[in-house]
Amino acid sequence: MHDNPLTLPLSSLRSHDAIVVEQREWFADEELRRALALAVAAGDRAQGTTSPNPPVGAAVVALDGEVVGVGATEPVGGPHAEVMALRQAGAQAEGATMVVTLEPCAHTGRTGPCTQAIIDAGIARVLYCHKDPSALAGGGAQVLEHAGVESEYLGLAVKALQPWLHAQHSQRPYVVAKIAQSADGFVAAADGSSQWITGAAARQAGHRFRAQADAIMVGTGTVLADNPTLSARDGHGNELEKQPRPIVVGTRTIPSEAMLWQRGVEQFSSPAQALDWLWDHGERLVLVEGGPDLITSMLTLDLVDELHLYLAPLLLGAGKSSVGHVAGTLEHATRFYVEATEMFGQDVAVVMRRTT
Amino acid sequence: MHDNPLTLPLSSLRSHDAIVVEQREWFADEELRRALALAVAAGDRAQGTTSPNPPVGAAVVALDGEVVGVGATEPVGGPHAEVMALRQAGAQAEGATMVVTLEPCAHTGRTGPCTQAIIDAGIARVLYCHKDPSALAGGGAQVLEHAGVESEYLGLAVKALQPWLHAQHSQRPYVVAKIAQSADGFVAAADGSSQWITGAAARQAGHRFRAQADAIMVGTGTVLADNPTLSARDGHGNELEKQPRPIVVGTRTIPSEAMLWQRGVEQFSSPAQALDWLWDHGERLVLVEGGPDLITSMLTLDLVDELHLYLAPLLLGAGKSSVGHVAGTLEHATRFYVEATEMFGQDVAVVMRRTT
Repeated sequence: MHDNPLTLPLSSLRSHDAIVVEQREWFADEELRRALALAVAAGDRAQGTTSPNPPVGAAVVALDGEVVGVGATEPVGGPHAEVMALRQAGAQAEGATMVVTLEPCAHTGRTGPCTQAIIDAGIARVLYCHKDPSALAGGGAQVLEHAGVESEYLGLAVKALQPWLHAQHSQRPYVVAKIAQSADGFVAAADGSSQWITGAAARQAGHRFRAQADAIMVGTGTVLADNPTLSARDGHGNELEKQPRPIVVGTRTIPSEAMLWQRGVEQFSSPAQALDWLWDHGERLVLVEGGPDLITSMLTLDLVDELHLYLAPLLLGAGKSSVGHVAGTLEHATRFYVEATEMFGQDVAVVMRRTT
Repeated sequence: MHDNPLTLPLSSLRSHDAIVVEQREWFADEELRRALALAVAAGDRAQGTTSPNPPVGAAVVALDGEVVGVGATEPVGGPHAEVMALRQAGAQAEGATMVVTLEPCAHTGRTGPCTQAIIDAGIARVLYCHKDPSALAGGGAQVLEHAGVESEYLGLAVKALQPWLHAQHSQRPYVVAKIAQSADGFVAAADGSSQWITGAAARQAGHRFRAQADAIMVGTGTVLADNPTLSARDGHGNELEKQPRPIVVGTRTIPSEAMLWQRGVEQFSSPAQALDWLWDHGERLVLVEGGPDLITSMLTLDLVDELHLYLAPLLLGAGKSSVGHVAGTLEHATRFYVEATEMFGQDVAVVMRRTT
């Protein structure tokens, strides 16, 4: 694996406490940094395929310092990341160190507990980025310690796990709202023209994110106006392998000729009702694409955890606003913090998270 | 000068043609790259102090490869960048190479022609980034060639010179409009509250840019509502050394108690009238800070060359829009391209230029 030029994607990691990552003892070990980078990247690639389980990544560093196994959580019912990495490592797991983005589970569900697999494989030490917050599967570190496996909590924030962690905490799916607007906040011009405010690269980025979502939600107004398929497609219009489950919120009837019927759409009268149903069906990441009325309603109910704002470098000064009335005063404005900005063609994407 | 760790700020340079900068012959010469970086940086520092002259930077590389002189354009009436760099180089200019961001002038104005100073100093070769577009001062490269000084046009876009070049081309000052708004395009909430939508870091960046502008323009509505000083201040509220000339556009009377009177304000009934007067008074870079009515009027007249959009990560959904009606259809929207994005505290700044 040494010809893989991956380096630690520090930009995707944040320390949970005041200790600077670079000052940690383990950080001096180049092989551990490399294993962490591989584990994080494996988890990243599993995003969108693991719900209700988290997209975890794991890597095994053998006694000679070589990374001998990398794995990620398989789709539900399949092995977890730790087991995938151990299978690749085989006998070289004996005495080795495992780096994993989430504390190994101590729970027998559809699969056996990862802690037991780690103990059985003879792993000597486990470094993990996040603690498992769930009552059922948590406590894995303690189980490992009892079995003589050294464990260390790294306190690093792994991006791919944030939606799942947030969903566990709030006991509802993590909600991402997507808005594509002019620089001054309009999703359509005064004459109704809206195709396309943002460019092809931004639209493709939107489609890639659709494939990471478990469900995609729109209001009945959008269905009636646009008759969308809400599928995740590539630049040539071909459907991607992973498709989000289409959800419509609103009381108006979905026309019988709507394209969405071909994709097994579910309809609910309120966002809360939809989120409850999605949670019960194991969905953990929901993408809301509009229209403005639905997004406004969800903002008002404080149900938007993340906002993907695609900003086209043009000014209209009039048209259909991206968001309806959410705050009458600056003090009551819905506030986010900026997680990242990225250019897609000529458009600026701003990823914002809700301040808690 | 070798302990100065400056490297070539490639991010601030763009090639004018299809040839990739890294493939140019001169690019292989580390000392020339270093001299170019120093010349560009010197020009950057001169921004806001040179109008009606351009903020040029120059550096001299001696025969042994050492950078022996760096200079920038002095305020009007003072020496140009080339002369400043030659003074520092002294006798080491003999046989040396000069790197300069703009073609040396061949014109006797308030100062003598730079071409003659270069010839007199014994410079063997001149590399310049931009051609001088002005009828009066242009043609310097030809003068140098006739005198046996080798000259090479680099075809690199130097950021600090863009406003001046654009102003020369259009024969009016370069106009930068600044808007600080919520993510959905409001400069004030429905109750009128607007202090502060963006944070302290964004406001300080705005003040630093004020000091680079020759003039700062607002509408009478802003004067009546906010009674601003329009001065460039540091984070402690102290005035910076360089102050932009305050300009008010509109027909309403400026109250006698307005703070602006202390700064020698000029008032005009229309933006075009103001820009004409500023051009005649040697001002080349004008910052328009609002209000929305003035910015809308200037957008409609196609007088905005650059937009500094400060976006606060909050949503209001109602309030005072940053821009009034400028386009009824997407096709007629005022379009820009994104030059750069930068974070200031929690706010995103997007620098956009008008597409031509």
